[in-house]
Amino acid sequence: MKDIMGSPGTLGGLALRVLQFVCAAGSLAAILSAYGFSNYSAFCYLVLQMTLQLIWSFILVCIDTHSLKINWDLHSTGNLWKYVIGDWILAIGSLAAASSATAVAILLAIDVEFCRVNPYLSCSRYKVSVTLASMAWSFTAASAGSTFWLLVSLSE
Amino acid sequence: MKDIMGSPGTLGGLALRVLQFVCAAGSLAAILSAYGFSNYSAFCYLVLQMTLQLIWSFILVCIDTHSLKINWDLHSTGNLWKYVIGDWILAIGSLAAASSATAVAILLAIDVEFCRVNPYLSCSRYKVSVTLASMAWSFTAASAGSTFWLLVSLSE
Repeated sequence: MKDIMGSPGTLGGLALRVLQFVCAAGSLAAILSAYGFSNYSAFCYLVLQMTLQLIWSFILVCIDTHSLKINWDLHSTGNLWKYVIGDWILAIGSLAAASSATAVAILLAIDVEFCRVNPYLSCSRYKVSVTLASMAWSFTAASAGSTFWLLVSLSE
Repeated sequence: MKDIMGSPGTLGGLALRVLQFVCAAGSLAAILSAYGFSNYSAFCYLVLQMTLQLIWSFILVCIDTHSLKINWDLHSTGNLWKYVIGDWILAIGSLAAASSATAVAILLAIDVEFCRVNPYLSCSRYKVSVTLASMAWSFTAASAGSTFWLLVSLSE
């Protein structure tokens, strides 16, 4: 079994999945507990995207844990394509969601100073949520990159 | 010379670069002519990113035209790495810029109805600009993908 750091079925890969799951869960918890988030489309999209990320990472955490436990080789090209496609779709979606939500959080906090005028808005939670969403994106991008690289090196 | 559609030094590649250039220029023109864009960080970031995109695509249009004219083979691995790195950085930046600007445009037009309340805001130009920026991103992603694929197939 080729060992590329962060690829499926390795300890590094499992660590990345756990980090994605934790960041997505944190981002989701922060935004869902923030008052008034549903008034902004970007935050609703963030909720959708982080939910998808949470489900995907959870499934992959289970598969990785199982494969490490029974020493199951996940590196067959048939399986890897599915991971690569899923990871890429989620990585692009998460980047779009994190950027959109960050833009709205910056707009509310700095550009129009809504947060200062309306102290009932949970602006600090918006900030925590977008930071965690950006971290979830970076870990998903790392997974997508390493799995793609493994696929390329296996097809050579 | 391997012929992968859209890779540097091919007619398809040149077409993609021209489309990127035209979309970035259109997006930039629309946002710069829109009243009040500089009040929003996301639109300022869009201006920065589309300027970088414009310069990058212009340089690549010149190189591609020149290579097609004198039949210069651009597909040496040394050169391709530079295109791949540049394209990927720009593709990620453009996606972030287009998403951020789209989120702010949607917020102004739909979420808080600023556009209805303040008719002096050039909301239709914001829309044109973000649409063209998203198109510029998709063409950059296509270039990045095909050049990366070429690099992978050459290194096999």
